[in-house]
Amino acid sequence: MFLKECLDNLREKTPLIHCITNYVTVNDCANILLACGGSPIMADDEGEVEEITSLCAGLDINIGTLNSRTIQSMLKAGKRANALGRPVVLDPVGAGASSLRTNTTNQLLEQVRFTVIRGNSSEIKMVALGTGDTQGVDAAAADATTQENLPQVAKYAKELAGRTGAVIAITGAIDLVADASKALAIRNGHPMMSKITGTGCMLSAITAAFVAANPGKALEATASAVCAMGLCGELAYQKVKAQGAGTGTLRVALIDAMSNLTGEQLEGGAKIEGC
Amino acid sequence: MFLKECLDNLREKTPLIHCITNYVTVNDCANILLACGGSPIMADDEGEVEEITSLCAGLDINIGTLNSRTIQSMLKAGKRANALGRPVVLDPVGAGASSLRTNTTNQLLEQVRFTVIRGNSSEIKMVALGTGDTQGVDAAAADATTQENLPQVAKYAKELAGRTGAVIAITGAIDLVADASKALAIRNGHPMMSKITGTGCMLSAITAAFVAANPGKALEATASAVCAMGLCGELAYQKVKAQGAGTGTLRVALIDAMSNLTGEQLEGGAKIEGC
Amino acid sequence: MFLKECLDNLREKTPLIHCITNYVTVNDCANILLACGGSPIMADDEGEVEEITSLCAGLDINIGTLNSRTIQSMLKAGKRANALGRPVVLDPVGAGASSLRTNTTNQLLEQVRFTVIRGNSSEIKMVALGTGDTQGVDAAAADATTQENLPQVAKYAKELAGRTGAVIAITGAIDLVADASKALAIRNGHPMMSKITGTGCMLSAITAAFVAANPGKALEATASAVCAMGLCGELAYQKVKAQGAGTGTLRVALIDAMSNLTGEQLEGGAKIEGC
Repeated sequence: MFLKECLDNLREKTPLIHCITNYVTVNDCANILLACGGSPIMADDEGEVEEITSLCAGLDINIGTLNSRTIQSMLKAGKRANALGRPVVLDPVGAGASSLRTNTTNQLLEQVRFTVIRGNSSEIKMVALGTGDTQGVDAAAADATTQENLPQVAKYAKELAGRTGAVIAITGAIDLVADASKALAIRNGHPMMSKITGTGCMLSAITAAFVAANPGKALEATASAVCAMGLCGELAYQKVKAQGAGTGTLRVALIDAMSNLTGEQLEGGAKIEGC
Repeated sequence: MFLKECLDNLREKTPLIHCITNYVTVNDCANILLACGGSPIMADDEGEVEEITSLCAGLDINIGTLNSRTIQSMLKAGKRANALGRPVVLDPVGAGASSLRTNTTNQLLEQVRFTVIRGNSSEIKMVALGTGDTQGVDAAAADATTQENLPQVAKYAKELAGRTGAVIAITGAIDLVADASKALAIRNGHPMMSKITGTGCMLSAITAAFVAANPGKALEATASAVCAMGLCGELAYQKVKAQGAGTGTLRVALIDAMSNLTGEQLEGGAKIEGC
Repeated sequence: MFLKECLDNLREKTPLIHCITNYVTVNDCANILLACGGSPIMADDEGEVEEITSLCAGLDINIGTLNSRTIQSMLKAGKRANALGRPVVLDPVGAGASSLRTNTTNQLLEQVRFTVIRGNSSEIKMVALGTGDTQGVDAAAADATTQENLPQVAKYAKELAGRTGAVIAITGAIDLVADASKALAIRNGHPMMSKITGTGCMLSAITAAFVAANPGKALEATASAVCAMGLCGELAYQKVKAQGAGTGTLRVALIDAMSNLTGEQLEGGAKIEGC
């Protein structure tokens, strides 16, 4: 399958990834980027983001703690990445929870072509509709992808992918990754992952690295990142359980697992299928 | 006692807490909020803080790395929380160490009604006097609550509570929590907790969650948060000692302990008494 | 040797260190400062940095996520520290990677006298030349200090130290610390340290503490900090290896090791020699 190849390419190319991301989980994003084989650089001043993006193989834009200063930087960096043909990932954290987040997401979607858009089901709903009423940074239960609505979610993700030109990744208990013509369901991960901050942000960051290292294969690269994150969550949970530990250990063990993950392990542990 | 009930309410209601907090310990605050049963959202742009506060069950204002931009956001969010009747916690980090921190604390106290004010003894002294000369972010030894001065500290905390309408939590080797009519002394915790950054910030964040989940019981909810934090520090220290580890492990084990803490364990381990 | 003495002084004096540093690794900087025996305070608003610096025994300026607002704060704090005769460390993260970083580094060097300048070989090259084309935040392989070019690097570091009046620390697989008349090569550390973010930032932060606690001995204090960091990396790696863990554990174990480090252990484990 493509999973091993995507991870091997990432570890071989060690792409430099420019992250304009929130200050809550930025350290986790940097450490998991290093753990998966990429190399992070964080820079958010309007006066340097274009130069930094130009140095990098990919860009990750995460609006988690956006502010009036950094929104301009996101737009500038995104346009520069587009001009240079470098992949750009959007993580619309909390889109729908405030007008600022909704409007910024719409502005980014208008001015920047994204390679991948990754969010939870409520955030992606906002992206699809251009409006929303997300309650915070977690998905509303009513929006969740389930075994029952999976075909409809797949159809809707493919349509959104067709309309935006981006691979769409809707993550939750069941993850769905789609381009305009194909959708994949991924069932890796563990519920305890929602009890630490940053699993979504970290996934977006490594997705930028996977996509940058696998040009022309955005769907496969994104699915590989999603499987890798979920599988590392499972491995981390096993360690937590064996030790009778808790969520502090889960976070450490997740990065441990990513740093040790092999292509064979990823192929063997991935729970992925077309849908 | 009320400790189990306060924790059980928190775990059942999973209140969303808006944090305007410093970038040093923000990740720890998010993770410990999740660990205790709450749900965090960090947002500090003036353009969205009122909307975000409106979504949330409680607000935590921490001035640890305040700046000219975020001070306005703190004031706006605080006023909105007041208008909606939502609890607000103030953590005046380093109040007294600079005019900016002292003036901001005074401005916040004038314009926002706080449900709880939590700080070390030097910070609370500044709050009480409106001026101060704190040396950094740690309390001066001369200001510490001791077995000897406990009755005076209790009296002074009750007066300050009466004057501000807020529950006052003065944390240190001995923690004191008071409203206008009652004071509680808490002797949980371990000295090694002062060797990691963020135990105060984390306590303020979870206090917002405890208070939000226990309306009308601000004193009990605050005392429960203080006991929980101290007890988790003790449990974490035991793990560090058993492993011959150090302060890196203490931080991880503290969040582990909070994520596994039960109401029974909290009741059993709390060292709390009237004073 | 001087290593034990420098660490013992630090643990005895617990100097308060003002850090104007990036938001990626700021939590690690605070925790390792506490672990080595110092006390951190982070503050970056122009309206308070001079007062905060005045309270502190030393200042650490790190340009990792600089922005138009914080650059002014760095200059103000640096000048105040100079006026008060307090040591100042510069960590020119990513200098050469953007004009903003290069220009800011040059501006800082013109307006502030540094006690220590610590960076990787590409960053220090930029400092020496006033210009550069660093690729990101990691050193270019071509710039690395090796067994072969060590005498030339030592000569160049001593010249730069003479020109700037600062101790120069060029860190990498082989670390080099020099003042105008003497150069030391340090061979502690482990390659896995480059797979977590922040080892450079943490080293700069503790260097400020070592230098503040050992006045008039900037070379020895800087070398002690470099040895301590490298040795703790080795100890952390041994733990990772014994547990079959990964880079998440390395980060935790690094801070554990620093918090437990004794002067005897440092003297015994240091791999340092004149060059």
